[in-house]
Amino acid sequence: MTSTAPSVPSVTAETAVTSIDARSGEPRGVVASVTSPEELDAICHRAGALVDPWRRTSRADRAAALRSVADALDAAVDELVAVADAETALGEVRLRGEVARTTGQLRFFATVITEGSYLEATIDHADPTLAVPRPDLRLWLEPVGVAAVFGASNFPFAFSVLGGDTASALAAGCPVVAKAHPSHPATCEAVLAHTRRGLAAAGVSTDLVQLVHGLEAGAALVAHPVIRAVGFTGSQGAGRALARIAAERAVPVPFHGELGSVNPVVVTAAAAAERPEQIGRDLAAAVLLGSGQFCTKPGLCFVPEGPEGDAVVTAMGAAFDGTAGFTLLDAGIAGRYRSGVAALASHEAVAQEAAGAQQGRTVAATLLSLDAEALDHATTQECFGPTALVARYGTDADLPALLSRLEPSLTTTLQHATGEPVADLTDALSRQSGRVVFNGVPTGVAVTWAMTHGGPWPATTSPYTSVGASAIRRFLRPVTFQNAPADVLPQELRDAGEGTLTIPTRIDGTLVLPATAG
Amino acid sequence: MTSTAPSVPSVTAETAVTSIDARSGEPRGVVASVTSPEELDAICHRAGALVDPWRRTSRADRAAALRSVADALDAAVDELVAVADAETALGEVRLRGEVARTTGQLRFFATVITEGSYLEATIDHADPTLAVPRPDLRLWLEPVGVAAVFGASNFPFAFSVLGGDTASALAAGCPVVAKAHPSHPATCEAVLAHTRRGLAAAGVSTDLVQLVHGLEAGAALVAHPVIRAVGFTGSQGAGRALARIAAERAVPVPFHGELGSVNPVVVTAAAAAERPEQIGRDLAAAVLLGSGQFCTKPGLCFVPEGPEGDAVVTAMGAAFDGTAGFTLLDAGIAGRYRSGVAALASHEAVAQEAAGAQQGRTVAATLLSLDAEALDHATTQECFGPTALVARYGTDADLPALLSRLEPSLTTTLQHATGEPVADLTDALSRQSGRVVFNGVPTGVAVTWAMTHGGPWPATTSPYTSVGASAIRRFLRPVTFQNAPADVLPQELRDAGEGTLTIPTRIDGTLVLPATAG
Repeated sequence: MTSTAPSVPSVTAETAVTSIDARSGEPRGVVASVTSPEELDAICHRAGALVDPWRRTSRADRAAALRSVADALDAAVDELVAVADAETALGEVRLRGEVARTTGQLRFFATVITEGSYLEATIDHADPTLAVPRPDLRLWLEPVGVAAVFGASNFPFAFSVLGGDTASALAAGCPVVAKAHPSHPATCEAVLAHTRRGLAAAGVSTDLVQLVHGLEAGAALVAHPVIRAVGFTGSQGAGRALARIAAERAVPVPFHGELGSVNPVVVTAAAAAERPEQIGRDLAAAVLLGSGQFCTKPGLCFVPEGPEGDAVVTAMGAAFDGTAGFTLLDAGIAGRYRSGVAALASHEAVAQEAAGAQQGRTVAATLLSLDAEALDHATTQECFGPTALVARYGTDADLPALLSRLEPSLTTTLQHATGEPVADLTDALSRQSGRVVFNGVPTGVAVTWAMTHGGPWPATTSPYTSVGASAIRRFLRPVTFQNAPADVLPQELRDAGEGTLTIPTRIDGTLVLPATAG
Repeated sequence: MTSTAPSVPSVTAETAVTSIDARSGEPRGVVASVTSPEELDAICHRAGALVDPWRRTSRADRAAALRSVADALDAAVDELVAVADAETALGEVRLRGEVARTTGQLRFFATVITEGSYLEATIDHADPTLAVPRPDLRLWLEPVGVAAVFGASNFPFAFSVLGGDTASALAAGCPVVAKAHPSHPATCEAVLAHTRRGLAAAGVSTDLVQLVHGLEAGAALVAHPVIRAVGFTGSQGAGRALARIAAERAVPVPFHGELGSVNPVVVTAAAAAERPEQIGRDLAAAVLLGSGQFCTKPGLCFVPEGPEGDAVVTAMGAAFDGTAGFTLLDAGIAGRYRSGVAALASHEAVAQEAAGAQQGRTVAATLLSLDAEALDHATTQECFGPTALVARYGTDADLPALLSRLEPSLTTTLQHATGEPVADLTDALSRQSGRVVFNGVPTGVAVTWAMTHGGPWPATTSPYTSVGASAIRRFLRPVTFQNAPADVLPQELRDAGEGTLTIPTRIDGTLVLPATAG
């Protein structure tokens, strides 16, 4: 503890960044000071000085650095889990899994850049025979420059200082300045310390990942001229404010925000008839997982009216009833949860179906319901924490119109019966999200090639995923070399001899793969 | 003429859209009326109604529709060139070439969607053996919805109603609402008429491309809820204003703007020594091509001090001297050209090297120069028209610092000597643009797989190209299907039997190509 939450006597009360124990609400100690404008500028310039060295580092060496950082975090997992559990109350099992996910993600991006498709390498040889003769053109993607990364409260590892945004930016070839989340500053500092150890062990600059603290420092970071792209995970309010700063800079930069969503689930009448208890139990488990603090929590469940739908809701309610209280990530989230649930419960159309226990700093899981026709803006917003709203609908034919009233989400889910034709519902659901889940729950976001964690606004602010291989595309931009001498071309864009192509490359319009080994 | 610039008696003076003869400045006739808010809303809703039918149209049928439209335009080339020449004074040779480029571009995107890589099809089969079992995940890119397209004054075909933005959006599966450019409204209407003929011949809705007229209609178009992405080519002022509207909507949408650039050229000392006359002649020709009205015009040329640099400038000047006057696209552009050149010439550091003739509505080509150390914001902005500024520098070692003072551009160009080592200069140039040209000129943008027509702000507002295969990515977003029944998956994401894969697909992490025919 002393190494990650040291007392810093020179910090004043105004500038102290204090770690708070999530369970007791008591201060654990001062872990840092708020980053001053002068410090922020120095940090950004240190990052800027690394842009060229890091983009020139070979993919093999960048991959090795990512793996080295992953190893350093894995080696410190006990310490990291302890400090994060104190700050977030997420529990050891979940946090140990999250460290594994985080280091797995770093290694995954090492694989992605080693494979090389992400570079979109494209070679069009000169063609003097065309009506308009074509020069030699060679395209690949270059890193954009320094990336700013804003992590979320609910994933102190996987979406924080060294989470998916940082992993993909580093893999792309971008130095990173991360903004520490105020609800887990000691965890941020601990992750940073081990990240620096991992970078040093790989023989690359320890300043490739730096950290700033404080709300104003975060805003100034987005505005800083050195920053060329922003990755953000958090609320719609904060995201929109930072997106505005990014858009109104003298030199605007892309803002890649993941702003959360309500993640509607549709249970068809046939599915409710086929397996009501299982569906109700699975949905309740997904709502309550991690105290309901996942951006993919199913917050709005369409369940048919009538006895079969009743059975689904009864099973959900049974899972809510009798739950112990849930300790949320911080006092602010707990406060917004209580007021959010109270506002929903006071809505004239909403009835309370079930509730768990509530005491002291903990909150109660709460299941609410209403007639789907009464859904309005107020009842279709994300409410972070262990709650869901069940919307009872008449017939499956009503569903597309009901879904079209919602804002898009990260996910949409369909619980259907075996063999039931659901092509039209699939269309309606895919319009409203970036991932459509069938006969499952949306929580659980695999870090893999085919994942999309994004969707139309407000799910994300740009048409990209923030999880999975193509998250790297957010930190890249295309550059074409025209009639370049071979010796100034990156190795990946030079003409390869027979069998020596190293990455998938489109050559004169045809995609060509490297020869597979053995 | 009468068919494309008909008199429309019911239009009032306030709402008339009048075609102007570029050479005489005289009105050619009323061709349309300004689009009212009610008409705009109806147009957008017609486009919205086509989102699902068009995205469900097979790639083969979409490709056929693109080719049909290309055929329709080619068949009408005489009429199209005549009306565009009257409105732009760009001349028959150039305009005939531009129609060919435009229809070539439509056929190119037909090839791109037929090949299918653009879908980024990715299949991760379920893996229950992992520590966290992975579901079946299948990713591809879906069209975003209706696209708004704003063309430019200087390309009445290739960057207008049916230009690259519209071609790539249609190919992606997005209906388009185009904003007619006020300097060539009759050309816009003529292109629209033949586009509709081509769409009808392919058996698809003629409303897949629609047209609005008027400044206010353009702003309202960007703000309309049906619009999901915007493609724009034009000035930094107009681009920034529309980008702000796109960002501040209740549902913000991506704004893909190409805002022009100064396109710096570096002539090394060794290159000036090797072939001064050729370089000077080639640069002057590129500056004067199309009356200097290309977004890739080399507007700022770094030439070494001393006699060898003098020889480059002398050769440029000789090409400028004695040119006849240039008729610019419209009176506004001619006025801004005159005031821009006058402001530059009055700058205390700037000297006039050469000038062509000027009379009546035409302007004079003007070559200016200054000491590169005197470059400032005012002298490094784009000035549309037949002018360039020569910046004389001391030694090659000064160049990286001089280049870093500039705003990024669409292109950067290096004129180097045979065998000269230029790796560091290449780095400095690639940081500042999306295309680096070696021993050539930046004008001429091949429509091909490896082209990039974009760059860091202000060249473009998003990290995409607006010319070339990946321009299509601006109108797509990723969607993942998790554990989906095969019958709801798009054909492209279903498991293929041996040898039946139709498009390049990443399967369980490995990129796999369809078997090549024959």
